[in-house]
Amino acid sequence: MSVKAYGAYAADKPLEAITIERRPVGAHDVQITIAYCGVCHSDLHQVRSEWDGTLYPCVPGHEIVGHVTAVGDHVAKFKVGDTVGVGCMVDSCQSCASCDEGLEQYCETGFVGTYNGPTADAPGHTLGGYSQSITVKDDFVLKISHAPEQLAAVAPLLCAGITTWSPLRHWKVGPGMKVGIVGIGGLGHMGVKLAHALGAHVVAFTTSEGKRQDALALGADEVIVSRNADEMAAHASSFDFILNTVAASHDLDAFTALLKRDGTLTLVGVPEHPHPSPSVGALIFGRKAIAGSLIGGIAETQEMLDFCAEKGITSEIEMIAIQDIETAYARMQKSDVKYRFVIDSATLAA
Amino acid sequence: MSVKAYGAYAADKPLEAITIERRPVGAHDVQITIAYCGVCHSDLHQVRSEWDGTLYPCVPGHEIVGHVTAVGDHVAKFKVGDTVGVGCMVDSCQSCASCDEGLEQYCETGFVGTYNGPTADAPGHTLGGYSQSITVKDDFVLKISHAPEQLAAVAPLLCAGITTWSPLRHWKVGPGMKVGIVGIGGLGHMGVKLAHALGAHVVAFTTSEGKRQDALALGADEVIVSRNADEMAAHASSFDFILNTVAASHDLDAFTALLKRDGTLTLVGVPEHPHPSPSVGALIFGRKAIAGSLIGGIAETQEMLDFCAEKGITSEIEMIAIQDIETAYARMQKSDVKYRFVIDSATLAA
Repeated sequence: MSVKAYGAYAADKPLEAITIERRPVGAHDVQITIAYCGVCHSDLHQVRSEWDGTLYPCVPGHEIVGHVTAVGDHVAKFKVGDTVGVGCMVDSCQSCASCDEGLEQYCETGFVGTYNGPTADAPGHTLGGYSQSITVKDDFVLKISHAPEQLAAVAPLLCAGITTWSPLRHWKVGPGMKVGIVGIGGLGHMGVKLAHALGAHVVAFTTSEGKRQDALALGADEVIVSRNADEMAAHASSFDFILNTVAASHDLDAFTALLKRDGTLTLVGVPEHPHPSPSVGALIFGRKAIAGSLIGGIAETQEMLDFCAEKGITSEIEMIAIQDIETAYARMQKSDVKYRFVIDSATLAA
Repeated sequence: MSVKAYGAYAADKPLEAITIERRPVGAHDVQITIAYCGVCHSDLHQVRSEWDGTLYPCVPGHEIVGHVTAVGDHVAKFKVGDTVGVGCMVDSCQSCASCDEGLEQYCETGFVGTYNGPTADAPGHTLGGYSQSITVKDDFVLKISHAPEQLAAVAPLLCAGITTWSPLRHWKVGPGMKVGIVGIGGLGHMGVKLAHALGAHVVAFTTSEGKRQDALALGADEVIVSRNADEMAAHASSFDFILNTVAASHDLDAFTALLKRDGTLTLVGVPEHPHPSPSVGALIFGRKAIAGSLIGGIAETQEMLDFCAEKGITSEIEMIAIQDIETAYARMQKSDVKYRFVIDSATLAA
């Protein structure tokens, strides 16, 4: 099936309208007409080949929501017309210890990314959600039970949402805990909303005085401008958990100093240049840890979507036409978005 | 009470015989005639003022074993003649959350070190175990139930033993776990013995081919020479926990690569120069952590001593006269000791 998409043919070429093929619907496949697709910073890194190994043509997009238009003979969980989502993964080995535990993101042979992943389909690598339609193995399709009018704002939950939800749940964030969220962008604003909804006392960290009111509106109980040493010092040794969504190289010691004994600072962004080497003494004198966390498994993504539907949680978005994707990338690089661009996939038909 | 000791009057002066005063035995005090005192690398750092804030005269020593020679009126747990030990701490606030949990090493107001800590006693800072006698609050005195002939080799358990025991227990090392111990020195050789006794599959990491047989004899199931990339690669993603006792700056990524998903690399040494900044990607792609751990609390020190007495575990030591302390320091700096120097405190009388 030929479908319209937007992609790039090289790292130094802009995205443009292209036509791609989607495979025939197999026995375990779900064919989805895409309604909206979120714009993640990873899309930009990948399409510009800022990470190693980008395969072209590259069609980014892994925050996909839409409706089922066909299902394979062996698909029991989905039917035509269902509202569904697809996140960062479309396959994994489904037989290793991580997959068995529902943690496909840590698949020991490597999960198959929604774009730039290995596939038998033409052109030999997966093509993502900047397209009209996608066909995905049923085990990697999520049910969405939000209200129809919320659908565009649900899209970013598939990456930004689960990337913050998974560590919040793994480190058991809930009532009685003081939790920090560092960086109030696409990921961080979801971290604030989710940690608040989980019942924690949420402190948002931003470098931008201008985000103080916004962060409170998102659900933060307190906001700290992290450039303000006095504000930081007042919270020394008081946090149970800090989720750090900032990928740019920065001083981690400023945050480990804020952890209580046995607290963890969890990073979800890989910096282009290494962070300054964190103080080992700061870890030792408090049995503290610096950890990492990668997106989330399919089961916990479904859990997060169901939780968000029940609580009425969505992302804060700015809708764009696909033709404006390069402008959106430029603004995203300047953090000029509150808080996630979402592509109206109907504009692909134009 | 005047007692003989060995200490230094300045960072650039050698240790020499000095006379110090010990306080009168208070209601909660235990007076201990010291039989043996282990020589810890911290002793050297402190007495040479390689860390900030050394107060002189400095009498090092925090791996103390001996016998009770007097007890205060309110001391119920100890009596004259008991065999006892004193480790790195002689006091703490005993009212903060950490102290309440038996984790005095993380006392929120700072524990009082066995030497160089604040005290009302002359000369205003604590003086350690390179002395004939010490008087210590009963809550910080440990019972020793090893056989009398083992006593010298018990001394290093009070720092090297507990510093490795505490993280092994905190991260729940036991049967079915593959555990690495990095660095086979004073701390690491205890880590191997204790992890083995706790039932783990123990892999010792050393940079020295010459320590391979020794590490097996200490209880390691396998030994990896960490300079050998092929040996390291064969163990990728296979460790539940790695305890890293090496304080010298080195590449931590070599060890995080060996952790399984959700594994932790725990550091117990503060490097003089920072380690190369660890890879964040290595943490994220496996939800791994780098943590720190500091000695251990009084209750877990007692637990460790009792466990070691029951299992017949002691340190490997080389006994020295106090007059040979500078030679011992020089050898310790070259890692020329298997595996801990212990001072025969009787030589202080000479």
